[in-house]
Amino acid sequence: MRILVSNDDGYNAAGIEALTEALRGLGDITVVAPETNCSGSSNSLTLNRPLSVRQASNGFFYVNGTPSDCVHIALTGLLDFRPDLVVSGINNGANLGDDTLYSGTVAAATEGYLFGIPSIAFSLVERGWKHLDNAARVARQVVEHHIAQPLDSKVLLNVNIPAVPSSQLAGTRVTRLGKRHPSEPVIKSATPYGEPVYWIGPVGNVFDAGANTDFAAIEENYVSVTPLRLDLTYHEQLDAVTRWAGPLCENP
Amino acid sequence: MRILVSNDDGYNAAGIEALTEALRGLGDITVVAPETNCSGSSNSLTLNRPLSVRQASNGFFYVNGTPSDCVHIALTGLLDFRPDLVVSGINNGANLGDDTLYSGTVAAATEGYLFGIPSIAFSLVERGWKHLDNAARVARQVVEHHIAQPLDSKVLLNVNIPAVPSSQLAGTRVTRLGKRHPSEPVIKSATPYGEPVYWIGPVGNVFDAGANTDFAAIEENYVSVTPLRLDLTYHEQLDAVTRWAGPLCENP
Amino acid sequence: MRILVSNDDGYNAAGIEALTEALRGLGDITVVAPETNCSGSSNSLTLNRPLSVRQASNGFFYVNGTPSDCVHIALTGLLDFRPDLVVSGINNGANLGDDTLYSGTVAAATEGYLFGIPSIAFSLVERGWKHLDNAARVARQVVEHHIAQPLDSKVLLNVNIPAVPSSQLAGTRVTRLGKRHPSEPVIKSATPYGEPVYWIGPVGNVFDAGANTDFAAIEENYVSVTPLRLDLTYHEQLDAVTRWAGPLCENP
Amino acid sequence: MRILVSNDDGYNAAGIEALTEALRGLGDITVVAPETNCSGSSNSLTLNRPLSVRQASNGFFYVNGTPSDCVHIALTGLLDFRPDLVVSGINNGANLGDDTLYSGTVAAATEGYLFGIPSIAFSLVERGWKHLDNAARVARQVVEHHIAQPLDSKVLLNVNIPAVPSSQLAGTRVTRLGKRHPSEPVIKSATPYGEPVYWIGPVGNVFDAGANTDFAAIEENYVSVTPLRLDLTYHEQLDAVTRWAGPLCENP
Repeated sequence: MRILVSNDDGYNAAGIEALTEALRGLGDITVVAPETNCSGSSNSLTLNRPLSVRQASNGFFYVNGTPSDCVHIALTGLLDFRPDLVVSGINNGANLGDDTLYSGTVAAATEGYLFGIPSIAFSLVERGWKHLDNAARVARQVVEHHIAQPLDSKVLLNVNIPAVPSSQLAGTRVTRLGKRHPSEPVIKSATPYGEPVYWIGPVGNVFDAGANTDFAAIEENYVSVTPLRLDLTYHEQLDAVTRWAGPLCENP
Repeated sequence: MRILVSNDDGYNAAGIEALTEALRGLGDITVVAPETNCSGSSNSLTLNRPLSVRQASNGFFYVNGTPSDCVHIALTGLLDFRPDLVVSGINNGANLGDDTLYSGTVAAATEGYLFGIPSIAFSLVERGWKHLDNAARVARQVVEHHIAQPLDSKVLLNVNIPAVPSSQLAGTRVTRLGKRHPSEPVIKSATPYGEPVYWIGPVGNVFDAGANTDFAAIEENYVSVTPLRLDLTYHEQLDAVTRWAGPLCENP
Repeated sequence: MRILVSNDDGYNAAGIEALTEALRGLGDITVVAPETNCSGSSNSLTLNRPLSVRQASNGFFYVNGTPSDCVHIALTGLLDFRPDLVVSGINNGANLGDDTLYSGTVAAATEGYLFGIPSIAFSLVERGWKHLDNAARVARQVVEHHIAQPLDSKVLLNVNIPAVPSSQLAGTRVTRLGKRHPSEPVIKSATPYGEPVYWIGPVGNVFDAGANTDFAAIEENYVSVTPLRLDLTYHEQLDAVTRWAGPLCENP
Repeated sequence: MRILVSNDDGYNAAGIEALTEALRGLGDITVVAPETNCSGSSNSLTLNRPLSVRQASNGFFYVNGTPSDCVHIALTGLLDFRPDLVVSGINNGANLGDDTLYSGTVAAATEGYLFGIPSIAFSLVERGWKHLDNAARVARQVVEHHIAQPLDSKVLLNVNIPAVPSSQLAGTRVTRLGKRHPSEPVIKSATPYGEPVYWIGPVGNVFDAGANTDFAAIEENYVSVTPLRLDLTYHEQLDAVTRWAGPLCENP
């Protein structure tokens, strides 16, 4: 079992160190992670410059690029083998609901999935690394279970772990993504030199936390496991859009 | 009709100028676009620094951030009104199949969609702006049709336009996204100072260009219109993953 | 007379447009300037990635790098000729006293000087482009004078122009650089997500504005012209440091 | 003795670790260094965004900015004390002759000097960290000597150390900066997607390596110590430029 590990908080984050440590003994582990924090980087790929790869004293490779860059170049030539599993994280904070679209942690796993490798993203729900040890233990359990009973098709799992001690964990639940309200307003500020600047506001409140959502699972102290797909076609809208587009189709 | 225009090639790209010009007369048009080329930026949001907004002599606003940043801050406080439509492009090159995941052009439209505004991404299939005038004409037709017959729900359209003269356009076709083979290998190179560097390789060849795909439509000189969804839950896998996760669920 | 023009505010700044317009007729003018604002970039050179050069609709070349990058690549291969003069600016704000060390405007001219080409940096003393027309007129006068009576050796001039109308300009004065007090304290702030951040504080107050300084000239509405050198050796300290280093020298 | 340590290769470079280790016992040591490699950054200051400061597991502070940013914010409010000495390095490669203008290592020391604190930049002449242990030993000697016999005025020393074992070191020599020929030509290349790009070429060959230069000292296996000044006024040109500017002065 060859495991490629990445994340979006950077190669020196506590989360990736804890994850790598927790996976010890389960296979050959290679870390290729961003040099700096890339939270919010989504599936961003660096196309206008080449990437540098260096190795830290602990053996981790780090790249001056995005999480997607890291896994992409690992899989397309940096590594001389094909991993059996890609894991990403443990992220410093939740990746629930619509957050998954913007998450670099999920993006690193997505890149593995798009190359046909089972991939799992792990996130610790609260920022600050509280109960990271428990999250690392859960991550190991999930990977052990995948080794014992491999997922039989292309699978991309988004795993969020409550920031609670082991004793308070209620169990694991397979969920769908919930939804948030739109983000909070942009925050207007100014530089010390008088120029206006704008900070992207915090995420919105939860809007859909129905019984089977990831939000609900976390709320009740369950580990949330959501299978993700990357086919963005809205198949259910195809007929309606085809009808709508009729006049356009006739008149090129 | 208030229309917000963005792109990922930057506010001074030929594509956004042609699009804005083509939409003239259809409503109040506001441009908020990235300062520099952001191809490949996906839904990346800038969270570690504030953004600056400036105005060019032609009235376009430009932001030192990503396409998602541009539309996000436009909708959360920069503009004092809510647009009725978000359009993005015209992109310099195709956004077909899996490319849509990485596209900043699609990401700008995605941001509008996530805020509940109908949104359309336009791409000219070949790089280099050949037949941009025709693409701009098609973009206007699509927007005019939306004005005449509004899409009745949250809709995000990914429109790719063949780089052909108007006379060679076969029509419009509503499609699903096709698929590509994985990317070409990473390209190893070196700096002039002897350090190794790695370029992300070009996209892979087309793998699934079935009859109803966007690839097929373009191949046959049709404008391709694909409705996109951003719910990443793989609903069809929920049962299988639930069965798989059984042992994990029992043992927290 | 072939003139290379650059700046640090970016190729689309009002200052470089006014300067280029003012120089019309004095020679062949080529603009190679940064794509984005690079204030404070000093002599920074980009060594970890290659640079892209593009051309705007007005003919200006722009580079995704620093002012020094722009002039450096222009002089080492981008241009197929050797300019007779490098001018930089007109900067949005003063470059007086110690500011010159950090200035990208001065750095662009420095790069020309280091390649053996007479070079002149122009700055408009107040931010906001007030009386830019007058500054452009002054810049033309200086260049005309250099054409009529060429400076007979390697010369790098730092020219600061008061933000006043032509009628209030007192004349031109050749000056030495004054000094400022150290900068204002760093400004502690926080991101909307709770992380502390630090803004570099504004420049300090003037400390040495003696009669022959650039600060004094500007205060009295004179154009300030300071010849700069880039030999950083502190020749006057060589003897003292040699004495001090005696014991080190004896004991390798 | 409170010593502030910075560099331009990044807080995790071998050179700053060796320097910090070598200084152990000589005083209270605080490291504030860039998060990533900033070679070539000169005195660049970050003015368009705030800076983040984080602490690595070894206690080093790192900043997502330039060497000048690091020392600047350390001295203007990040630290609650004023250091007695600023040291920078040990750099991965030489900072000789005109290189000093572009060096981030020298820039970090320059920032200390501008705030009135004796400052020393250390560079190991060949890239690759060969004989770093000897360079660290030399650095300690220099700092010890400064503690025993403090430099009696504002002093900024640029120290380059040959990459040789201790036994081959010839001694220490106080030098002036030599000069190089202009850089090698820009290197034209292309992205994998067909866009032209330009790499800044390597530095030029040595032009002035006269007997008392830093180049000559290094050539003969001496540690080179050069006192630097940051007053960029070309005092010796003031008269000539004043005569030249006569006509300009009369006609404002």
